[in-house]
Amino acid sequence: MKTRRAAKPVAFQGARGAFSEEAARQLLGPRVPVLPCERFEDVFRSLQDGRAEGAIVPIENTLAGSVHENYDHLQTFELPIVAETSVRIVHNLIAPPGVTFARIRRVFSHPVALNQCLDFFARHPRIERVPFYDTAGSVKMVTEEGLKDAAAIASSVAAEIYGGRILRRSIESDRRNFTRFFLLRTPDYARRHPVRAPRHAQWKTSLVFSTRNIPGALFRALSAFALRDLNLTKIESRPLRGKPWEYLFYLEFLDRVDSPNARNALNHLRELADFLRVLGCYPKGA
Amino acid sequence: MKTRRAAKPVAFQGARGAFSEEAARQLLGPRVPVLPCERFEDVFRSLQDGRAEGAIVPIENTLAGSVHENYDHLQTFELPIVAETSVRIVHNLIAPPGVTFARIRRVFSHPVALNQCLDFFARHPRIERVPFYDTAGSVKMVTEEGLKDAAAIASSVAAEIYGGRILRRSIESDRRNFTRFFLLRTPDYARRHPVRAPRHAQWKTSLVFSTRNIPGALFRALSAFALRDLNLTKIESRPLRGKPWEYLFYLEFLDRVDSPNARNALNHLRELADFLRVLGCYPKGA
Repeated sequence: MKTRRAAKPVAFQGARGAFSEEAARQLLGPRVPVLPCERFEDVFRSLQDGRAEGAIVPIENTLAGSVHENYDHLQTFELPIVAETSVRIVHNLIAPPGVTFARIRRVFSHPVALNQCLDFFARHPRIERVPFYDTAGSVKMVTEEGLKDAAAIASSVAAEIYGGRILRRSIESDRRNFTRFFLLRTPDYARRHPVRAPRHAQWKTSLVFSTRNIPGALFRALSAFALRDLNLTKIESRPLRGKPWEYLFYLEFLDRVDSPNARNALNHLRELADFLRVLGCYPKGA
Repeated sequence: MKTRRAAKPVAFQGARGAFSEEAARQLLGPRVPVLPCERFEDVFRSLQDGRAEGAIVPIENTLAGSVHENYDHLQTFELPIVAETSVRIVHNLIAPPGVTFARIRRVFSHPVALNQCLDFFARHPRIERVPFYDTAGSVKMVTEEGLKDAAAIASSVAAEIYGGRILRRSIESDRRNFTRFFLLRTPDYARRHPVRAPRHAQWKTSLVFSTRNIPGALFRALSAFALRDLNLTKIESRPLRGKPWEYLFYLEFLDRVDSPNARNALNHLRELADFLRVLGCYPKGA
């Protein structure tokens, strides 16, 4: 009889119930084992060291923009992107069991979450906003301490995990609030488990490059894609370490990295770029 | 006899002695009156409301990258950029008078500053890093409280203002650490005081635009500059509010906005862009 190896967890930043855990469930099923980490760097490191078998990292939010720190880690660590997904950020008001809405005077959460619920706070001026280091962590704190006049703002998964009660659902001011996450694996894992997708799925390829600092360099680099009708879905610039006022560019286009068209585009870009690395190729998320 | 009007101050974010104050002195002289503000938004608002006559805002750092919040404010507030300057970020270890280096056990500063001095902390493992909300504010605190075992990390201007003693100069790990700042004025002020520069000075123009989300749109937009040999010095993307996964682009090129070449490029870009606004035209900083 074959013994089944215990599944290694997927690492993410934040406490249990963070939006990253929702992303992990969307991509890997509701029972995926998880490894919460304090900092983004720890997430990358856990995967690299083999403590985790995958890593989930947020890469951009439709209101707040790119998570630039994670772009930098994608370049430093060589951990390929194998999937992406988007999570709609739904902020819920969550209180310890027995605490009613009328008694709430303080609401704890991450400053970004508090800022995304300003209409709610404008309607309830008696409630004070209190910044906390983490959304899900604020639910853990108010329920564990059994605070009688306090609530937290976080995901419904956080309410479920820490036994909080959802008093108001979806209190965010703008519902067009989505965060896009990447799933990363080790190069070895990615080789042994090639990504599969339905036949007509669209694919995305992510890469990073730098060009010489000469007039028209970025335009020429983009021509490698435009001349082949490859659709760019994202471009982001980051400072190049050690070269003040020069930049690295992160770019995503719609196609498989090994399609003839993409291969030609990458060869063309290689002629123009000082540095080029493909970060991953994965099916376009919903 | 003509009475001289008292000069209105220049607003910046942070406590007196912040690196923004160094930028203000570089651009407007060592005796420029200043208005320290708590948040970046307050800096823009003070200028708009007339409490300040100018605003100094950091826009990018060679190690940490762009200050994205300020890109967003540049788009929201219509306050033209009239000058730029770069400040070399020199971190100094500053203690209350009478405190010697041997007695220091704790160092307070902004987390970004603490992180930029990791080599110093590695050489002195007995010293604990303590995050504080502001670099200059940490000098104010250690000197006002007269702490006997503590120092702060901040600019030399902060040491001068709060009467701290510089125990170690330039303890940052990477000296290629520069922050670029903009000076903003009201549209009315900018009209009444056109920017002047030496005859052979280079000029920069900053603008923001969005394109339809179609293949090759960014490439075509950049062609307006590349086809006219205009040198781009910066491009930055930010999420477009209300349109998930669409972007605004901030762009800078080397030329005056009213040169024939730049005018043609902007007319060309207007054909392609959904939205276009010039944020300012100013002499290239040193």
